[in-house]
Amino acid sequence: MNRKIILVFISLITVSNGFSQKNHMDVEIKIDKLIAKMTLEEKVHQLATQYPNANMRLGIPNISANECLHGIKMNHATVFPQAIAMASTWDLDLIERMGHTVAKESRAFGIHQCYTPMLAVVRDIRWGRTEESYGEDPYLVGKIGSSYIKGLQGMGDKRFDKDHILATAKHFVADGEPMAGDNGAAHDISDYTLHNVHLYPFRLAIKEAKVGAIMPAHHLLNGIPCHANSDILNDILRKKWGWDGLIVSDNGDLRSLKRVFNYVPDWNHAANAGLKVGIHQELALFQGWNEHRMYGDNLIEAVNKGIVSESLLNNAVAHVLKTKFELGLFDADVTLDDRFDVIKHPDNGEPEKVSQHDAEMFKKALYVGLAKDNWKDIVSNQKHNDLALEVAHKGIVLLKNEGNLLPLSKKKNKKIAVVGPNGSAMRLGGYSPDIPKYYISIVDGLKAYVGDDTDVSFAEGCNFTPSIENIPEAVALAESSDITIVAIGGSEETCRENQDRDELGLPGPQQKLVEAIHATGKPYVVVLLNGRPLSIEWIAEHSKAIVEGWYLGQETGKAIVNVLFGEVNPSGKLPISFPRNVGQVPLFYNKLQTGRPRDIYNSNPEPLFSFGYGLSYTTFEIGEPKLEKSTISIDGNTTVSVSVKNTGHYEGEEVVQLYIHDLISKRARPAKELRNFKRVNLKPGETKIVELSIGKQQLEYWNEGKWIVEPGTFKVMVGAGIENLKATNLVVK
Amino acid sequence: MNRKIILVFISLITVSNGFSQKNHMDVEIKIDKLIAKMTLEEKVHQLATQYPNANMRLGIPNISANECLHGIKMNHATVFPQAIAMASTWDLDLIERMGHTVAKESRAFGIHQCYTPMLAVVRDIRWGRTEESYGEDPYLVGKIGSSYIKGLQGMGDKRFDKDHILATAKHFVADGEPMAGDNGAAHDISDYTLHNVHLYPFRLAIKEAKVGAIMPAHHLLNGIPCHANSDILNDILRKKWGWDGLIVSDNGDLRSLKRVFNYVPDWNHAANAGLKVGIHQELALFQGWNEHRMYGDNLIEAVNKGIVSESLLNNAVAHVLKTKFELGLFDADVTLDDRFDVIKHPDNGEPEKVSQHDAEMFKKALYVGLAKDNWKDIVSNQKHNDLALEVAHKGIVLLKNEGNLLPLSKKKNKKIAVVGPNGSAMRLGGYSPDIPKYYISIVDGLKAYVGDDTDVSFAEGCNFTPSIENIPEAVALAESSDITIVAIGGSEETCRENQDRDELGLPGPQQKLVEAIHATGKPYVVVLLNGRPLSIEWIAEHSKAIVEGWYLGQETGKAIVNVLFGEVNPSGKLPISFPRNVGQVPLFYNKLQTGRPRDIYNSNPEPLFSFGYGLSYTTFEIGEPKLEKSTISIDGNTTVSVSVKNTGHYEGEEVVQLYIHDLISKRARPAKELRNFKRVNLKPGETKIVELSIGKQQLEYWNEGKWIVEPGTFKVMVGAGIENLKATNLVVK
Repeated sequence: MNRKIILVFISLITVSNGFSQKNHMDVEIKIDKLIAKMTLEEKVHQLATQYPNANMRLGIPNISANECLHGIKMNHATVFPQAIAMASTWDLDLIERMGHTVAKESRAFGIHQCYTPMLAVVRDIRWGRTEESYGEDPYLVGKIGSSYIKGLQGMGDKRFDKDHILATAKHFVADGEPMAGDNGAAHDISDYTLHNVHLYPFRLAIKEAKVGAIMPAHHLLNGIPCHANSDILNDILRKKWGWDGLIVSDNGDLRSLKRVFNYVPDWNHAANAGLKVGIHQELALFQGWNEHRMYGDNLIEAVNKGIVSESLLNNAVAHVLKTKFELGLFDADVTLDDRFDVIKHPDNGEPEKVSQHDAEMFKKALYVGLAKDNWKDIVSNQKHNDLALEVAHKGIVLLKNEGNLLPLSKKKNKKIAVVGPNGSAMRLGGYSPDIPKYYISIVDGLKAYVGDDTDVSFAEGCNFTPSIENIPEAVALAESSDITIVAIGGSEETCRENQDRDELGLPGPQQKLVEAIHATGKPYVVVLLNGRPLSIEWIAEHSKAIVEGWYLGQETGKAIVNVLFGEVNPSGKLPISFPRNVGQVPLFYNKLQTGRPRDIYNSNPEPLFSFGYGLSYTTFEIGEPKLEKSTISIDGNTTVSVSVKNTGHYEGEEVVQLYIHDLISKRARPAKELRNFKRVNLKPGETKIVELSIGKQQLEYWNEGKWIVEPGTFKVMVGAGIENLKATNLVVK
Repeated sequence: MNRKIILVFISLITVSNGFSQKNHMDVEIKIDKLIAKMTLEEKVHQLATQYPNANMRLGIPNISANECLHGIKMNHATVFPQAIAMASTWDLDLIERMGHTVAKESRAFGIHQCYTPMLAVVRDIRWGRTEESYGEDPYLVGKIGSSYIKGLQGMGDKRFDKDHILATAKHFVADGEPMAGDNGAAHDISDYTLHNVHLYPFRLAIKEAKVGAIMPAHHLLNGIPCHANSDILNDILRKKWGWDGLIVSDNGDLRSLKRVFNYVPDWNHAANAGLKVGIHQELALFQGWNEHRMYGDNLIEAVNKGIVSESLLNNAVAHVLKTKFELGLFDADVTLDDRFDVIKHPDNGEPEKVSQHDAEMFKKALYVGLAKDNWKDIVSNQKHNDLALEVAHKGIVLLKNEGNLLPLSKKKNKKIAVVGPNGSAMRLGGYSPDIPKYYISIVDGLKAYVGDDTDVSFAEGCNFTPSIENIPEAVALAESSDITIVAIGGSEETCRENQDRDELGLPGPQQKLVEAIHATGKPYVVVLLNGRPLSIEWIAEHSKAIVEGWYLGQETGKAIVNVLFGEVNPSGKLPISFPRNVGQVPLFYNKLQTGRPRDIYNSNPEPLFSFGYGLSYTTFEIGEPKLEKSTISIDGNTTVSVSVKNTGHYEGEEVVQLYIHDLISKRARPAKELRNFKRVNLKPGETKIVELSIGKQQLEYWNEGKWIVEPGTFKVMVGAGIENLKATNLVVK
């Protein structure tokens, strides 16, 4: 250890002890002192993400960041159901618990921040990232997203403690309505819809979950790149909302300001544009760090040329340092030894110049983060698996069950066929670890469930290529079986981030497979595993039982089988509409009124399955809504209560949904807007009264610069899904 | 004639002589005097359209209004090609000439105003009204629309003379981008795109053609009904643009303010809302006039209740009267005798109380208008037919001509088959008269062209129902013929106003018909007659020759046959992109840049045929663009010149197109924007230099409240269609 390293080490201890107090004033002074000591290069290094933004000379720790869309994206971690399935649970407590668990696993891997959740309000399901979303409704997206953030970050004393991480809401803003479904498509929108629809879940995530970081979106918003958009990042996010968190660019999007959008004349100005709208850190996952990085050598050059002011740079550095303090990274007991291990490597503090071996060590330590010694114990916890299973159970949506084909009898079905490309293959969806902890396929799940006296056979029938040669094998199997599980849908091959669709039917010859199985006349159940609604009009008409599973994580097969055999009564509700065909898209339930009746040549303009829809093995009767007060003031509150009775023969859960319509408003409001919901468990014959509160959050909308509750009559509707709602009127004075 | 009638008659003469001077001040005084004499009921009657807005007691004439989308919609009138075909001509002089002719026929029928043209910039071709449009480009829509308006209204001394009418640009604004193609779908848009795209052609029609009337659109624009939208009607149209024309509601859309949008609490307030945004007249084509009319008994009630101020009413009445003066309706020599014929009927001046016979006479005279005695001579003019044929010739777009299958030889094809549902049926498109002057089908046209030594046979093969039983007959005919014309496409049955589509393939089994004809191996030509692009990917790949005719008016068959046999060299260019499938929609060439590369699963994101595209029987070579000045000031002008050489063997016409890209702009601009074009005729081997001017209109765009030309570099591109453009740079300082 040479003299320089020793000096750094000592100063580090001093600094750490002080900084750990997390006193705001103290921290600010310490940040100023640190910045004063930093070279220009050291400052710029703070603004990179996966490029280690630690600083060895001054002992500044790294924020190690990753993705945790549905579990932390690290090998051997617990894989939960995909985001769209999380939303289908309509269970806020469950999703918050999932967040805590994911955060705990993340910290076990040494990860401090995730670029999660995605709060897109998805209005065009051709978009490849639909699966990463919580669906089409701003309120549901905001509530599910906030619950997950609460879990990831922790609330109150637990916020950013050693078991919690920094969540990053993305993509700011309006990524969910890409024209024709093209990822990153230029989006055009009024302030009215921007606030009421796309900003809505972010506002909620800030108010209710205090989300700590935000990532801007890829696209042009009204002709301005989101990554250079002062209206949304400075004016709305910071000035109007008073939010003061960390903003991290999306991958390469600062570079796109020049390369894609020609918004600035050169790279130097791209860096300046990003800093001017307060993007503190750049994510730039390219081969070769510096040449494609705006906040790298290019930024150093831009400062030296006077294009970027050093004070603008210092602001961003200060914000990054503040975040590191908030995350407790300067706390000696967390990282001191680790950092010492790191800083003893390079003599000159520049990672590029150390040996290859040392550089790898350095990257591993500072970028990927330092896994805890007991990380395996943490992530292998059975409770985590149980939780993943619970989310899967509640995320499954029963779409059709004609003649009560489901649940299946274990006794009567002694020969079970599984056919289809999703029967035994691993289908986890995007942002999954390369190596999950494990994956229970439908075939695996069946075999484990039925026991030795039942025969479970599998024939793929087809995959997503055009080949139909294996369909007869699947048909033969179905013909010789008591019941066939037709496991179809999609995969990350057929639709994913940066690969959208212009067709929403089943990819490959899967439709032919279903028709062939149907033609046998033998009973079968369609199980869908996929990342977005598919236009399955024929199946909806002809098949007796349809189960939508989305991607259900490591427990897929177990969860599906539990539902198919009635061990679990399905209770998921669609967070997104199913179109009959791709030509109906954009299709979402809360469109504003058309000026003419809709009439489509030879077609039905209604969705195939509507928002909020989902069957159960039991039946529920929802009573007439009753208001505690039928008249309130504009800042008043009331509750609507409604009886829910289980009128069937199974214990089950129903999601009671509250929709609002502001009948006469300065600007048109949707005829139905979800504004509250509650899950309720009922035994057969049992009745419960569900109370849903109504106040500002239920009644307000944004118009001309502010959120307002307008006096007048509001239609208050209650039910299970947007169809057959029961209504009453609330007068607001 | 009783005393009262005589008095009115005399005062009418006096008034008429004075009013005919069209002196603005004079007219204003006279309008004030007239209004002072009017009862409340008489005032309200002025604000109805098809409800006669004449006033017998005071001798106020009627504006008789109709539609003239592609010819005046009166029986026996000349039927020109549909709007989308008009746009395909890219011939502004031709369209202006067409306008003059249509206006002349309109006046022959006693019609003073048409609710034409539609200036929608169509970005979603699922919309049933696509055929009524001039396509997807704001500049082309604006230019074609302005040319038509110039013709309809007349310019200079001819404006609103006895051979010209009042044009009505519609629908204000942004009707061409309905979500999912639903007619009247709520539309959400930024001011940026509103101005640069949807307001653009209206601004042009006001600046260049001084359009006299505007009709608002059905839909909600950013949550406010267009018919109650002060931002667009008061602020932009009148205050910013200084426009002072007549605003007429669309059918029933004032009623929709209450019935559909709940924007107002009752009918009285619906009338008030319309008047407040300066809608002068109401169009309300319902059975039973008054009960569904906002500007009827309801308005009288609203004034009596004090909900509508009489001064607001008077403003609208004054505007209607001003329009009548401008149209010369008070000029004695035009309508004096006619009006006398009318006013001698009712004693009390109230049409409802006259006998049924008299009321019918009155309606006919005042609503439908009084046809001139020689109307038949006027509309049967052969020059009108010739002009309709010229528009049809130039509107035909040759999409494919592999191996120069076209033009066909008259000598070699002695047995010609016509198959398909559009071979002999009348296909005129929307807003055609019930009884056109005549209709030449493709079969008619062929028979007339080929003469007695050639056999022309027709087999429908299929229509738009699912039935395929007649396909074999068509196949047999094709097999025994030298050449087959496959006449397919759509009709008003398959798509029209208020009936949209969620599929863009050929309706019915037409695709099967084409495949069956193709399978014969015999030569065939696909001729499309339809109102919008169809997704014909298979045909584009397999068929050798494809001719897009849209709807070509009364001369359809003659024009198609002239093109097929090379009497006319096709020269039309697409005003709208052809998608490969409905899942690509919205698809238009001037989208802003996406933030990520487009990647569609198993599909090609490019259009099947792109904007500006169209083949010829000859070939043209377009040279490198040369700028007169390569640097200009922001208010400067220059020209780009380009050589065009006919390198083939036929005389032909090419449309040279100029596209602009403002390379670095405060807001992103499209990579290509049409900003000028010129048709040029060239003999084989001939070269001409085409000059296209570049000035403010080419370089400006709207940003943050104003139209600006930004200093910097502009890419100036020239070619025939958006592919293979040749570019040079223009510097603006």
